[in-house]
This record gives sequence, structure tokens and C-alpha cells, in this order.
Amino acid sequence: MTVEKGPLIIIGGHEDKEGRRKILGAIAHAVGDGKLIIATVASHEPEGYFDTYKKAFADLGVTNLVELYVTERAESHRAEILAPLQDAAGIFFTGGDQLRISSQIGDTPIERLVRDIHDRGGLVAGTSAGAAVMSEIMLVKGASGETHRIGDLNMAPGLGLVPDAIIDQHFAERGRIGRLLGAVAQNPRVVGIGIDEDTAIVVRGDMFKVIGAGAVYIVDGAHVTHSNISEAEPERTLSMHGVTLHVLSSGDEYDMATRKPALSLKEINQEQTA
Amino acid sequence: MTVEKGPLIIIGGHEDKEGRRKILGAIAHAVGDGKLIIATVASHEPEGYFDTYKKAFADLGVTNLVELYVTERAESHRAEILAPLQDAAGIFFTGGDQLRISSQIGDTPIERLVRDIHDRGGLVAGTSAGAAVMSEIMLVKGASGETHRIGDLNMAPGLGLVPDAIIDQHFAERGRIGRLLGAVAQNPRVVGIGIDEDTAIVVRGDMFKVIGAGAVYIVDGAHVTHSNISEAEPERTLSMHGVTLHVLSSGDEYDMATRKPALSLKEINQEQTA
Repeated sequence: MTVEKGPLIIIGGHEDKEGRRKILGAIAHAVGDGKLIIATVASHEPEGYFDTYKKAFADLGVTNLVELYVTERAESHRAEILAPLQDAAGIFFTGGDQLRISSQIGDTPIERLVRDIHDRGGLVAGTSAGAAVMSEIMLVKGASGETHRIGDLNMAPGLGLVPDAIIDQHFAERGRIGRLLGAVAQNPRVVGIGIDEDTAIVVRGDMFKVIGAGAVYIVDGAHVTHSNISEAEPERTLSMHGVTLHVLSSGDEYDMATRKPALSLKEINQEQTA
Repeated sequence: MTVEKGPLIIIGGHEDKEGRRKILGAIAHAVGDGKLIIATVASHEPEGYFDTYKKAFADLGVTNLVELYVTERAESHRAEILAPLQDAAGIFFTGGDQLRISSQIGDTPIERLVRDIHDRGGLVAGTSAGAAVMSEIMLVKGASGETHRIGDLNMAPGLGLVPDAIIDQHFAERGRIGRLLGAVAQNPRVVGIGIDEDTAIVVRGDMFKVIGAGAVYIVDGAHVTHSNISEAEPERTLSMHGVTLHVLSSGDEYDMATRKPALSLKEINQEQTA
């Protein structure tokens, strides 16, 4: 019998922690009575992160929470750090610096246990830096609120739970369409997924569904006819003709295999009866 | 004999006024030895605007400058205000509030004289508010740095020198892709043109060419398969599937009639010899 891989909940940062908590509610629903690991490893100063989430999740009925933190990569092999992951129902990566997540736990037993959770049907979730790290290639640095310059982008290998994609967060709030376009221009094999704050995608297999208050932007470079990304001057402004852009909001779905957005059945029914 | 209409130079705001002045240089080139009207009418407090441009243009050899300002719409009929426009080689609308331009001079003799300049081959230029007012429909209000909410957009009739288009400015700098998408969703008949700061389009007939430091974003909704813009709730987040997006930079051209970007001949030659 093959077990289906678990869901991924990938959040654009600043998810609501005090109000209706739609996104944290989806996490609570996914882990049920099980143990949820709160991985604060993205932060250089993790104090406070765990308590904030402990409080936010308590009202949602999730009380079996364990913090995961490593100061140094060497700790990623210690048994007392690894043990709680063995029977976790899910893990949630909080915000900070995505390079801290990948550099501290990449290719360590922790990463393998995270992958195990996913493979045995458990939840892997992340917000902000914890969202960026989900993709195969993650954006590490790049200007916000301006048009992309060819030389202005740092990328690094992420955890790779979402293949053929690059995920950016705080998307509309920080004006990041320029840098995501630049990343996709480098190789249109990857689809760009820009997630607004208090907004998430719930991934199951090749499909995902949008939940939360904002939008999710899909930058698809498959039909690009011209880009100047390989030009020599790093200060040159990006030029990119023929991008397909989808703006998805709560309830919309997207098929990463066919690269097509879809309305949820609920919305289709609403349109037909309107 | 039919006279060809003059060029439009439409600037996304904050054009360089002290360095290489590429955009102001294009304006200087277009007016030559002729008289350039500096229309500061978009501003509630125009003091300083004229002097700034007088200084910036002096080094570029444009010395025949006249300021156009009206405090009240009634002045738009006064002979001494209208006289300098009769033989002007061009007019340049500076920044401020686009509604001040349209409400003070719309449907007045000033507007007719501006149209005359254009019709007889003269230059009409504008930056920031002066850029927004060029289009048939202008964006007056709408959030920046966030995803568009269906009810959050004010539009008004502009001067209409660029038909079937809606122009937004300070584009990447203020994260305005959301509101331009929202405007195009309302009716994909209009193409959205988002212009970065220190960047301009030089329009001749249906074609325009990009000059300056940033990019120009074209939002083309012709192939949109779904949008929720007509839904009842104004707080609903925009959803819009199948937008075509072009990012154009210096030297790129765009044909508004066929809605296709093109490389300039210079770039095509460079690509062939590379």
C-alpha cells in the first residue's frame, strides 16, 4: 500500500493570529489531536515566536506543541532534538531568514525527518521564510518595490518539497513582482508563486488551493518570446515579453502540472446559479 | 495635406533632473528652438515647480519656457493665459493631482489648445499626474502595495490623448500592479500601461518606445478567462486568470493596435551579431 503524501500549507507571512485565524485553523485541522512541531530555526533570535504560536493555536485546540530550534548545525544530529519529530503529525516553519533554515538543517537528519513527515501523510507548513524554503530554488535576496535589474537576485537551493516552483512571500505588500519575474526569466521551467500576507496555498500533489485574505500571483514564463536576462550588464533593467499572469484569490485552485488555474466547484456552482 | 500628430512623452514620475536627463533631453529634442509651456496646473501649490524645470531645461538648451497655471477653472478662458499656447512647440504637464488637471482645464479653451498642439505636430508631455491624465480613463485613487480589492478604485475621464489605455505611474516603486490589474479587469478593452519612475514612453501613432532607467509594464486582459470583478462584495480580493504581461525596458517598442511588443531594430541587430 502506498501512503499519499501529506499536505503543504505555504503562507505569505503575517497570518492572522488573533482574529478568525483561517490559515492557522487549516493547520489545526490538518494535525487534529496530533503533535505539531513549531520550527523557529529561521530566526537568529527565536525568543517569543514559540509563545506567540502556542497562544494562537491553544484557542484552536492544538495543545501538543513542541519547539524545534538549533543554534548550530552540529545540533541537528542530537537525539533529543530529533526524537520529537519521529511521531509528529506536522511541522510548521516560522519566519526569519530562509538561509538559516537551509544552512542549519539542509542535508541533516532533521531534514530527513521533515521529509518523512511529508511522506507518511503529515503536514508541512511554513510562513514567510518558512514558505520560501519549501521550493526547489528559493529567493534569498532581491530588491522589493522596484523593477528587476538583471544582476540583482540571489537564489539558493531550498528544501524542494514543491518541485519546479519558486515561492516568494509578502508579495503585494512589498511590491515583489519584479524580482519574481526576474527569477522566472532565468529559467521558465520553474513557475513563480507570489503569496500575499495572511494568504496561503494548500498543496496536495500537483494541485493547490488558495485560502486567506489576499491573493496568490502565478508568473508563468512558458510562452515568453523575449527576455534580456542573459545580457552582460547587471544594472540593465529586465525586459520580458509574453508572461502569463494569474491572480488567484480565496477558493481558486491551480494545477502545477498543467499550469492552469481552476475555479473551485463551489464557485462554478455559484456562477451557474447567478 | 494632412499633418501628422505630434509625439507624446509620458513619464512615470521622478525623472532625472540633474544627471544625464535622458527623458528631459527627449523633450528638449522634440521642441528644438520652440516654446515649451510648463503646465503646473496639477499642483495646489505650484511654487518651485517651474523654477526646477527652468533650471533643468536650461542646460539642455531649452530657454523659451512659459508657465501655465490656473487657480480656478474660470481663468481657463482668459486671453492672456491662452495666448502663449497659440504658437507653442510643446506643453509639459508636471506632477500633482490628476483631477486638478482634468477638472480645471477639461472642456475649456486650454484643453482645446493642448489638442491643437498635438494635432499640428507639437509635443505633449506629462510626468506623474501629468502622465495619468493622458489616457482616456485615468486612475485617481486605488491602494498601492497590496492586492486589489474589488471596490477599491476610483477612475475619471482623462484628456484622452491615448485612447483605449489606462496609464499608471510610480509603478514598481509603489507596488501598483494590483490596482492596474483591477482597472483592466473592469473592461479588458483598455490596455494597462504601468510606468516606473525615471522612465517614459514616447508615443507616435499606435506605437510607443520605452526610454529611461526603469520598466514599463503592459497588462493585457484580452485573453482573461475568469475574473470576479463584478462580484458584489467590495472587500473581495481580485481574482483574474490568464492575463498577458509584458515587461518592457529601454529600447523596447509596443504596438497598441496589435497589442504586441517588439524589439527595436538596434536590439534585433545586436541579437543577430551576438
